[in-house]
Amino acid sequence: MSTTIDSGPGSREDNGQREAGLVRLEERFGKQATRGRDVLAQHSHDESFHLPGQPDLVIFVESTEDVADCLAICSTHLIPVIPFGVGTSLEGHVNAIHGGVSLDLSRMNKVLRVSSDDLDCTVQAGVLRKQLAKELVPYGLFFPVDPGADATIGGMAATGASGTTTVKYGAMRELVLSMKVVLPNGSVIETGRRARKTSAGYDLTHLFLGSEGTLGVITEVSLRLFGIPEATAAATVQFEDLHSAVSAVIAVIQLGIGVARIELLDKAAVASVNAYSNTTLSEQNMLLLEFHGSDEVVRHEAKLAGEILADHGGTGFTFSTDQAERTVLWQARHDAAWAIRAQRPGAQIFVTDVCVPISRLADCITQTHSDIASSGIFGPIIGHVGDGNFHVIVVVTPDDAEEMHRVESFNERLISRALEMGGTCTGEHGIGLGKIPYLIRELGDDAVSLMRSIKKAVDPLGLMNPGKVVGDL
Amino acid sequence: MSTTIDSGPGSREDNGQREAGLVRLEERFGKQATRGRDVLAQHSHDESFHLPGQPDLVIFVESTEDVADCLAICSTHLIPVIPFGVGTSLEGHVNAIHGGVSLDLSRMNKVLRVSSDDLDCTVQAGVLRKQLAKELVPYGLFFPVDPGADATIGGMAATGASGTTTVKYGAMRELVLSMKVVLPNGSVIETGRRARKTSAGYDLTHLFLGSEGTLGVITEVSLRLFGIPEATAAATVQFEDLHSAVSAVIAVIQLGIGVARIELLDKAAVASVNAYSNTTLSEQNMLLLEFHGSDEVVRHEAKLAGEILADHGGTGFTFSTDQAERTVLWQARHDAAWAIRAQRPGAQIFVTDVCVPISRLADCITQTHSDIASSGIFGPIIGHVGDGNFHVIVVVTPDDAEEMHRVESFNERLISRALEMGGTCTGEHGIGLGKIPYLIRELGDDAVSLMRSIKKAVDPLGLMNPGKVVGDL
Repeated sequence: MSTTIDSGPGSREDNGQREAGLVRLEERFGKQATRGRDVLAQHSHDESFHLPGQPDLVIFVESTEDVADCLAICSTHLIPVIPFGVGTSLEGHVNAIHGGVSLDLSRMNKVLRVSSDDLDCTVQAGVLRKQLAKELVPYGLFFPVDPGADATIGGMAATGASGTTTVKYGAMRELVLSMKVVLPNGSVIETGRRARKTSAGYDLTHLFLGSEGTLGVITEVSLRLFGIPEATAAATVQFEDLHSAVSAVIAVIQLGIGVARIELLDKAAVASVNAYSNTTLSEQNMLLLEFHGSDEVVRHEAKLAGEILADHGGTGFTFSTDQAERTVLWQARHDAAWAIRAQRPGAQIFVTDVCVPISRLADCITQTHSDIASSGIFGPIIGHVGDGNFHVIVVVTPDDAEEMHRVESFNERLISRALEMGGTCTGEHGIGLGKIPYLIRELGDDAVSLMRSIKKAVDPLGLMNPGKVVGDL
Repeated sequence: MSTTIDSGPGSREDNGQREAGLVRLEERFGKQATRGRDVLAQHSHDESFHLPGQPDLVIFVESTEDVADCLAICSTHLIPVIPFGVGTSLEGHVNAIHGGVSLDLSRMNKVLRVSSDDLDCTVQAGVLRKQLAKELVPYGLFFPVDPGADATIGGMAATGASGTTTVKYGAMRELVLSMKVVLPNGSVIETGRRARKTSAGYDLTHLFLGSEGTLGVITEVSLRLFGIPEATAAATVQFEDLHSAVSAVIAVIQLGIGVARIELLDKAAVASVNAYSNTTLSEQNMLLLEFHGSDEVVRHEAKLAGEILADHGGTGFTFSTDQAERTVLWQARHDAAWAIRAQRPGAQIFVTDVCVPISRLADCITQTHSDIASSGIFGPIIGHVGDGNFHVIVVVTPDDAEEMHRVESFNERLISRALEMGGTCTGEHGIGLGKIPYLIRELGDDAVSLMRSIKKAVDPLGLMNPGKVVGDL
C-alpha cells in the first residue's frame, strides 16, 4: 500500500524543474536547508510499518514567513511539500512518497501567549506536548490532550489527535480555538478568532484539523486550557474476563461519573508492560483510571467508580493520589506500545485504531480478541475505552509477506466489524497512507469525492503531502 | 444590503429555463409544491429587518429522496434552492433574494432513533427543538442547545446555533455527531459516523455545520444527548452597575464553577420584559443563572456563585428549584427580544451578535452601553455572557433611512470594537445577508477567498442559497 510512486503532480519525472526549485530553496534557506543523508533518512518515515519515502531536501523553518516563502517556491516549481513535526504519526503521514521538501517545524517551538483570564494560549506548531505542559505550570494551567507520544502541537492538530483524556476534556477537534495556516500558494490566514464561539462563515479551523498536511501548513495554534485540578487520583482494577472489564467501563460512562481517563490494557499488554517497565502489575486485564477535581469530588467519584467496577467483577481496586506512583503507572501505560514491540526485537508495530459507539464496545473487543487468537498473531489490546476507541498493537515483520497478509486480513475484519457497529476505522491516528481504502468504505464514494473536490479547490497543484488522506488526485 | 438582485447563477433573466424546471418540480411534487401567495410570502423572510425576497415555488419535502430529486431538477434547470426550517434566523438566511425554490423541511419531523446507552439520537432536520425535548423525556435525556426560538434542529445545525447553555454543554458545533446531507447535484452523503470521535478524513460534519444552506441540504442530524440532571436550580441577582455585573460573570467562569446558564439582561431589557411578560423583576441590571447536577452539587455551586456575585456588588440573590418559577423566569428571558420589539409597535429588530474573549467582555459591554446612549437608539442588551457573547436588540423602522444609517453606524462601531478585542462579528446568528462585509474584515480576503473556493468546489453552479455567507460568486 505504501510504495514510492513517481507519478502525479510534482512528479520526479520533471527533474530539471524540480532541481531548479531545490536550488532556489537552498539559496533562500542557506543552512536551514539540507540534503544530508541522515537527515533525509530521518524525515522519510514515521513510527509505523509503512515503507519510507525519502524527501529531496529538508528545510528547518523558523517562522511563518519561512513557510510561506517555501510554499511559494515549491508552488512555482511543482515540488511536493510534506510538513514534519517529530514524526510520531502512525499511518505513514510524513513519508515523502513523491520526494519533495520535508518541511521540519521543530524549530518553531515558542509558546507565544498564555492568558490565565481567558484560559487559552497560542503556540508555534513545533512546540512539544511535554514542553507546553512545563511552560503552563507557573500559570496553574494545563492542556489536556495526551496522545502518549511527545508530539508537536501542530502535528496533533494536523492529525486530529486525542488520547487518554478525551473522555473528560475532548480531543484536538474540541480544544483548538483557531490556527494560523499557510495555504499552498503561500498566503497566510487565521482560521478563526480567539472568541469561545463563532458562527462566522465556513469552519476553516475544522477544515485544517485532521487534514494531515494535505491542505496547507499549520504554523500557530490557539488552544483552550484548563486549571490544574486541585486533586488528581489514579486507580487500577483487574478483571479476569475482558467482556466484563469493558461492560464496567460502559456502566461508569453511562452513569456520568466524571472520570478523566479510563484505559484498558488486556492481559497480554500488562505482561508486556511488566517486562519492559519493570512494573509488577497483576497480569490480568486491567483498567487504569484517573480522576480530576477537588479532593472531595475525586474521592467521591473514585468511590462510586470502584463500586460499579466491583459490581462488574473487578478485583483489587487500588486508589492513589501520590504523584510518583501515578507517574510510574501512566508512563508504563504510555510506553505500552514500545513495551509490546520490544517483545519481538527488530519487529515493527501495526496499530489498529477503530472506534465504535460505546454500547457496542464490549462486543467489538471480545470478538476482536477471539480473532487475534485464531489468527495466530501477537496483538495485545490497549484502549481509550471511555471513548469507544481501542488499539490492537500487532507486532509484525514487514518483510514477511505471509505474516503481513495475515495481519492485513485481520485488520480488514476488525474494521468491517467496527463499521457494521456504526464505528470508524480511525478514532485518532488518521488516514495517512494506510487507511485510504477504508475511508472510502466508511463514508462512501460520494463523501470521499467531496473531500477530493475540496482538496482540488484548496491545493489545485496537488503539492501538499500528496498521496495522503484522499490519495493522489 | 439586502435587496432583491436578479443576476448571478440561476438568474431569473433566463425565465424560460427556470419556468420549465418549476413545472417539472410541480409535476414531481404535486400537492407538496405550491405557488400560493401567502405561502410564498411566508417563505420570503426570517425574523430580521432584512428585505424579504420571494421564492418562485415552495416545496414541502417529506424525505431525503424528495430533497435529492428536487436538487437534481434544480441543478438541471439552474434554479436556486433555499432550505427553510421555520424561519427563525436573524440575518436574512432564508430570504429568497434570487427567487427559486424554498425547500421547506418542516414535514421531516420524525425522531428516528434514541439510544440511552450511547447518549445520542438521530432526528430528521425539521424536528423542532421543543418537540425533541418532549420526546426525550421518557428516556430521561435532553439535548441542551437552546437558542430561545423553537427552531428546527436542521436550521440550528445549518446556522451553527448555540444559546443559553453553551457555557456548560457546548454549541451545535460540539454536539452534532454526524449529518445526512444532500449535495447540490442530488447525491446523498453521511458526513461521519456515530462513534464519539474520529480522524477519518476531512471534517465534513463541521463543513456543513454553519454553512447556512449554501453547500447542501441537511436532512438528518445525529446529536449527543445528556441525562436530565437530578436537580436544576435557577438564581437571579441584581447589579446597579453594568461593569460590575459582567466582572462578576467573568469571576464565576474563571473559578470554574459549573454554571449551566449565566445570562445578562440590562436595566432596559428587564423593564421591557416586565412590561411584556407581566413579571415584577427588580428593574436593575440582572443576571439569571441556572445550575444542573445532583441536589448537593447544585446547592454547593449556587452558594459559591452567590458569594462571588455578592463580592462584586450583586444584591437580592434569589435561588429556586421550583419548576414553575424557573419556567416563568426562562420564558421571560427567551421572550426578551419580542418584549423589546413590543416597546415600539410596528417596528422591527436589528440584533447584534458580537462575541469576545471573556477577559474583554466587561469593557466591550460598558463601552457599547455608552455608545447606545450617545447614539440615541433604543437597544437593550441581553447576552450569553458566560461565552463572551451578547446581543444589542435594536428596535428599528427599516423605512426610516436616517435611523437605519445611525443603527448601522452603531453596529459597525460595535463590531470594530469586538474585532479589536480578538472577538467575532457573530457568536451564533451567522453571516446570512447581513454580515458579509464584516466576515471579510474579521478573517481577511485570503480566508474568505478560501471559503469561496470551497463554495465553488461543492456548489459549482452557485445554486445553493445564493448570495449568503460568501455572497454571489
